[in-house]
Amino acid sequence: MTQNTPFSLDPRFEGGSFLIRRLSLCQLRLQDDARWPWLVLIPEVADVREIIDLSETDQAALLADIRTACDLVKLLAAQTGFAVQKLNVANLGNIVGQLHVHVIARHEGDENWPGPVWGFGQAVAHEAGERERLVMALRSVV
Amino acid sequence: MTQNTPFSLDPRFEGGSFLIRRLSLCQLRLQDDARWPWLVLIPEVADVREIIDLSETDQAALLADIRTACDLVKLLAAQTGFAVQKLNVANLGNIVGQLHVHVIARHEGDENWPGPVWGFGQAVAHEAGERERLVMALRSVV
Repeated sequence: MTQNTPFSLDPRFEGGSFLIRRLSLCQLRLQDDARWPWLVLIPEVADVREIIDLSETDQAALLADIRTACDLVKLLAAQTGFAVQKLNVANLGNIVGQLHVHVIARHEGDENWPGPVWGFGQAVAHEAGERERLVMALRSVV
Repeated sequence: MTQNTPFSLDPRFEGGSFLIRRLSLCQLRLQDDARWPWLVLIPEVADVREIIDLSETDQAALLADIRTACDLVKLLAAQTGFAVQKLNVANLGNIVGQLHVHVIARHEGDENWPGPVWGFGQAVAHEAGERERLVMALRSVV
């Protein structure tokens, strides 16, 4: 019933993240939280909440985009002097149901290590110039 | 340097989960926490911490196993009368570094909705008979 609905981005992503570019399936966005190197992938497919709601072709494209985002979050971390010990790759969607995958760099001693980042404290917005620098650095390599 | 190391399961998985069976790449295990329908996938590949450390072939196999686990966690939820509103599919690994993917069913009003399950409160172990029943129910369909 929703096959003809065009894709639209949940406004909460517009407010809390910045578009880097479109990858094979997903929008790649910089999460507006300077506490961690944090990217978000949002498949540009309408009305999808779960990974398994995607076609298998789109799932494979999402996987390729996750690979790209994992490489890029390391670059993002390098730009901010954040030493990466572990990546967290996750689809939760308990708050914003539109399908999205978080790709976050973590290290021992970070703001909530070893706990999860979601729901922890308050986001620390990037300063505008710094955000622009980071978005440009990421755009230059994808 | 570790190419010839055989796969071995981190003992913390032995203690906190139960083997259902091996899928295409992964051990599929029932997490010993009755608060949520909760499965864990552990690729049987030695010395791997990140999804992107797997070969692309193994990543595709992991994706297939995630699909299976998503279907099975719904079955697990049905067995325990847990109404599924959202799946959480995540690789964190901040505590146990061996690569593993959580597949968890969630609903509004569950023990920590809409927050994440990791690090929240104390696990509630399955009663032995109930655990056996659930493992058998899952084994009967995969």
